[in-house]
Amino acid sequence: RIDGDRLWDSLMEMAKIGPGIAGGNNRQTLTDEDGEGRRLFQEWCEAAGCTMGLDTMGNMFARREGADPDALPVYVGSHLDTQPTGGKYDGVLGVLGGLEVVRTMNDLGIKTKHPIVVTNWTNEEGTRFAPAMLASGVFAGVHEQDWAEAREDADGKRFGDELDRIGWRGEEPVGERKMHAFFELHIEQGPILEAEGKDIGVVTHGQGLWWLQVTLTGKDAHTGSTPMEMRVNAGLGMARITEAVHRIAMEHLPNAVGAVGQANVYPNSRNVIPGKAVFTIDFRSPDLEKLNSMRARLEKEAAEIAEDLGLGIEIEPVGHFDPVTFDPGCVSAVRDAAERLGYSHLDIVSGAGHDACWINQVAPTAMVMCPCVDGLSHNEAEEISKDWATAGADVLMHAVIETAEI
Amino acid sequence: RIDGDRLWDSLMEMAKIGPGIAGGNNRQTLTDEDGEGRRLFQEWCEAAGCTMGLDTMGNMFARREGADPDALPVYVGSHLDTQPTGGKYDGVLGVLGGLEVVRTMNDLGIKTKHPIVVTNWTNEEGTRFAPAMLASGVFAGVHEQDWAEAREDADGKRFGDELDRIGWRGEEPVGERKMHAFFELHIEQGPILEAEGKDIGVVTHGQGLWWLQVTLTGKDAHTGSTPMEMRVNAGLGMARITEAVHRIAMEHLPNAVGAVGQANVYPNSRNVIPGKAVFTIDFRSPDLEKLNSMRARLEKEAAEIAEDLGLGIEIEPVGHFDPVTFDPGCVSAVRDAAERLGYSHLDIVSGAGHDACWINQVAPTAMVMCPCVDGLSHNEAEEISKDWATAGADVLMHAVIETAEI
Ligand SMILES: NC(=O)NCCC(=O)O
Ligand SMILES: NC(=O)NCCC(=O)O
Repeated sequence: RIDGDRLWDSLMEMAKIGPGIAGGNNRQTLTDEDGEGRRLFQEWCEAAGCTMGLDTMGNMFARREGADPDALPVYVGSHLDTQPTGGKYDGVLGVLGGLEVVRTMNDLGIKTKHPIVVTNWTNEEGTRFAPAMLASGVFAGVHEQDWAEAREDADGKRFGDELDRIGWRGEEPVGERKMHAFFELHIEQGPILEAEGKDIGVVTHGQGLWWLQVTLTGKDAHTGSTPMEMRVNAGLGMARITEAVHRIAMEHLPNAVGAVGQANVYPNSRNVIPGKAVFTIDFRSPDLEKLNSMRARLEKEAAEIAEDLGLGIEIEPVGHFDPVTFDPGCVSAVRDAAERLGYSHLDIVSGAGHDACWINQVAPTAMVMCPCVDGLSHNEAEEISKDWATAGADVLMHAVIETAEI
Repeated sequence: RIDGDRLWDSLMEMAKIGPGIAGGNNRQTLTDEDGEGRRLFQEWCEAAGCTMGLDTMGNMFARREGADPDALPVYVGSHLDTQPTGGKYDGVLGVLGGLEVVRTMNDLGIKTKHPIVVTNWTNEEGTRFAPAMLASGVFAGVHEQDWAEAREDADGKRFGDELDRIGWRGEEPVGERKMHAFFELHIEQGPILEAEGKDIGVVTHGQGLWWLQVTLTGKDAHTGSTPMEMRVNAGLGMARITEAVHRIAMEHLPNAVGAVGQANVYPNSRNVIPGKAVFTIDFRSPDLEKLNSMRARLEKEAAEIAEDLGLGIEIEPVGHFDPVTFDPGCVSAVRDAAERLGYSHLDIVSGAGHDACWINQVAPTAMVMCPCVDGLSHNEAEEISKDWATAGADVLMHAVIETAEI
């Protein structure tokens, strides 16, 4: 069994870096706070006897040697970056849960045949730089590294430049590591496990996603002296498309969601009819057909709305992954571990995207989930209990030991 | 006749201060650029033999003496501040047109019985600090000065502090000046004069306005893993209320307009359902009953939309004026001047708010309007011809001379 108190203490310690304004965290990727979090993680890993690897996308790899140095390592981990108003557990639990696995194995003197590597993937959240899971995507060969490094935040800062700035670009080429398996522990971020009273979610699938960025072009004009029939109102277009996103998702239920997360009008002045609107749409479904149907429907309806209002429209996909089916062997290892340890469990589909979704393309992969209060995440009030965290890390450790072989 | 070339040169010279990104201006109130514009205006006024007064709201008063120093002055003027993506003429034409009146009277050796005062009113636009026409409102006794000075911009900076910072707070108490009359020259900012082929708009009335700031409170949550039925989406509420504003204005046609100019969601992240939305509504009508009916209807519908979505809602009025009827004597002076000078003219209602709307409460007031291309304003592409500007300033001068008596 892992040491739940030590895991919890580490979670609380990490949460002191980049505190939010309401009890959560703002430790966005490639900020100074991200650098500070990385330093603390590296210290802890080295204290636990690991050696740290760092690739040119800033992905961190803390290695605990195995009995057979030629055996491919079993990887665990997740991400330390957070949303601007994020919680203390989203991602962090998976990284520090992986570290706790190593610490417990050290305490118990457990030596596995395969080495164990604890990873921290760069820019999982995708808030500052779209898309999400950017560096694990490059690792898995889904994105070109040059393209990834050229991604810009809202201030026009490039991913590559910001990585250099915080001093966390390594020398190791991205994606050359081969994995025996990858396991990611994560909070559910949804309400199912808590509602069903289960300790553990055995993640069999992940939903697919489309992120679309829409730019509407109208005409800045005076709100008072411009007659209604002369207006080319990009803000009104954004409103109509936002409603369409909601309706389209509702019409694809069950197993479909959709929302507009980012919404900006220009010049954003009380007495100017917005001449421009830029906003992002997030559609998800575990069903590929539904996922693509939502996108197609939206593109059609948005074009009609724009035409109706005389607006120019551009729709750019800024994030995408297909629904994921995790490796049956790894999934069984998770389910068996939960069963053996006596934790109640349920097979579930991940509603969020995770680094595991990309790594699944290059290695046998599965995920362990634990409940979170009210299913709330991407909110500073995100909360889990120490028992839930402990159960999740326990199952992670046993799945890892089983796979890494004693 | 005024010197149209000199007026135009001054307009172009002033436009060099706080240039925009697309040929217009960004010289927002109480910025360094505003200070620079004020300095240039003061230099020009002093070169034209005027003495400059400055009150504690930063309103500027350039005085040309009259033959009877005890006679109340005739005031002219408008504002030098601009929208963030504003034009070169909105407000500026009225200030520099007033200066051109003085310059021409100097050239022609015209001495009026009443002194002439050219004013620049602080923060007419209301973009940085709501409401619009803030300092003329304090002058007219509509707003308390303390309240006005406490208005905050988006960064939380106070009006009073910013006025001190740019060094343009005077010593003169606000509103103690008595006026014989006030005339404001302004571009129409709407399409009517150009469409009707008229040189001059004789402004008989001004529309009334309601600015409402709406705050919706929902719950930040993950866009992927939060089921549709659990969402409390403040962005969706903003979209529905934006549509309602448009529909309500359309249902009050003719003589009614409505739009949402500012729109912000929080945390404004692609994969977070907005937990908060803050946006502003602008309703206008020359008909008081319609104006108030639009506000009431919106408040009712917005409350229903919020309840439907489970959102908290707060609606705060952040700007208001009733429809205005200008002084018949001053209006006649404008109409007669246009007639005498042989300019085609039309009685019109101002679609925008103007400093003249407040000054009308404390002095006989009227406005002169000139056309603008495509009725476009609050847009960097705002344009007028030199002929239109010249005609407007000519009519202004003749209305002023008539009122100030030779
Ligand atoms: N787990 C998580 O929140 N990942 C961020 C990417 C996403 O929006 O699903
Ligand atoms: N003239 C003008 O644009 N004034 C700003 C106040 C308003 O929005 O009407």
